[in-house]
Amino acid sequence: MILDIIDILGLITFAISGVLTAQSKKMDIFGIFTIAFVTSVGGGTLRDVLIGTTPVGWMNNLIYVYTIMGSVIFALMFNKILSYLRTSFFLFDTIGIGLYTVYGVQKGLSLGLHPVICIFLGTISASFGGVIRDILCNEIPIIFRQEIYATACIFGGIVYFGLEALHLEHNLVLILSVLSVISVRIIAVKYKLSFPAFY
Amino acid sequence: MILDIIDILGLITFAISGVLTAQSKKMDIFGIFTIAFVTSVGGGTLRDVLIGTTPVGWMNNLIYVYTIMGSVIFALMFNKILSYLRTSFFLFDTIGIGLYTVYGVQKGLSLGLHPVICIFLGTISASFGGVIRDILCNEIPIIFRQEIYATACIFGGIVYFGLEALHLEHNLVLILSVLSVISVRIIAVKYKLSFPAFY
Amino acid sequence: MILDIIDILGLITFAISGVLTAQSKKMDIFGIFTIAFVTSVGGGTLRDVLIGTTPVGWMNNLIYVYTIMGSVIFALMFNKILSYLRTSFFLFDTIGIGLYTVYGVQKGLSLGLHPVICIFLGTISASFGGVIRDILCNEIPIIFRQEIYATACIFGGIVYFGLEALHLEHNLVLILSVLSVISVRIIAVKYKLSFPAFY
Repeated sequence: MILDIIDILGLITFAISGVLTAQSKKMDIFGIFTIAFVTSVGGGTLRDVLIGTTPVGWMNNLIYVYTIMGSVIFALMFNKILSYLRTSFFLFDTIGIGLYTVYGVQKGLSLGLHPVICIFLGTISASFGGVIRDILCNEIPIIFRQEIYATACIFGGIVYFGLEALHLEHNLVLILSVLSVISVRIIAVKYKLSFPAFY
Repeated sequence: MILDIIDILGLITFAISGVLTAQSKKMDIFGIFTIAFVTSVGGGTLRDVLIGTTPVGWMNNLIYVYTIMGSVIFALMFNKILSYLRTSFFLFDTIGIGLYTVYGVQKGLSLGLHPVICIFLGTISASFGGVIRDILCNEIPIIFRQEIYATACIFGGIVYFGLEALHLEHNLVLILSVLSVISVRIIAVKYKLSFPAFY
Repeated sequence: MILDIIDILGLITFAISGVLTAQSKKMDIFGIFTIAFVTSVGGGTLRDVLIGTTPVGWMNNLIYVYTIMGSVIFALMFNKILSYLRTSFFLFDTIGIGLYTVYGVQKGLSLGLHPVICIFLGTISASFGGVIRDILCNEIPIIFRQEIYATACIFGGIVYFGLEALHLEHNLVLILSVLSVISVRIIAVKYKLSFPAFY
């Protein structure tokens, strides 16, 4: 139940980040909605397509469509107050990628895939919505350039399998993995850590 | 039979629009053909991948490949007269998106998906070929910026389910839905209607 | 066995080409790895998604992930000597696309698809990794503009079916098809052949 609420909060946050990006590109309402949609569910959709779980996730439950529609309307109506919510957004987004990572890892496990592949799937779930958003907006994906974002997901996936190997209680593994993603991301942003570019 | 002919005309129109875009980007013959191909069948391909109907549609019937090849050759040979055919193209393209929308809606229904999702699938079928074309040409997709295009598809999908709810005869529902897409698009272009950009 | 080794060499070459492109875009280590990964396995992944062979190929054997990781580390450590290996890279890359083409053709045949579609699948397998790389790097795909690359793949696919029709021994057909891709590509580069752009 708490997980569902946080999942929805993550969805809202991703959608609003999509709205802001689309507006900066002067898109119309259809473009804005599409960008919000792919930012929110694009990572999970790519994961589902790659593993063959079709029809993809958001087609089976209207909660995704309605949540994103509501978020877009909210973001367009209260555009000015969004800037006051910056810290909340960062928090929801960070919790969101933690959850999406662990969901993705578990989807891979349910298909019997190797842990390394499961970590890839978790990372794709959490971070490729933003990659597709940036491509549709004709930008080089931001996560390829200057953020420890995907790395937090990869770290969370490794923690998941590390804790599983210690035979910890399953729910504890889930919670600690999500927390590890959140911690790495918060520490990285707080101390302005990022990987060097190699060029 | 008439539907098949109009389907082919839509395919030709999309292919030629792809050729013109690819030429403006100074692509070679392989690039031109690829862009024509994705413009024509990209939307339906994305729909098929998302719902898991694979191998995707154009792999099962060579009519798609041959029609697109023929269109590309025609467009390259008679480049100059294409500008005289602008009105015909607009008409074929508009009829094409009407048909693709209704096809997409029906594909969703055949899988038991919710009407809202079916409308999404119809819109994806009709408009995402152009989105993929623009991405491959390194442009922000035009339909995100300045055309009531996807909106006509969404409207047509809503009309489809509205008429179904009235228990009209099935073929009549199909025809009226396609006509509603066409009408919205023609009215929008004639009166230069478009959604405002929010920025 | 020899085919497996050449397959790995092709994978390494594609990965290194991805590293070089990503570096020129000032990406961080995650971006570099992602670009190397999609350059290497993107074409085969797209093929698998289009025909519905999921989970896609690289998820079933860790050799892909480890080879690409090793190649990225090698490329970053020995950046300066890479320029001395230019001819070797060209050779591996060329052998690689030959192999990928024939693999793709055979995958299509195993699903009973028409030869024309199989040739498309071979070409997609060999050349769309580079297309996805260029899109993620915000460039118009290079193979749409100035190289006889995809054309070599298409030619190899036609040779495959031509030799099959002559009832040659199967392994001979495979080898000659791969060699035909390699020959066209080497001749094209040696004599600076390319298709004219039509604009």
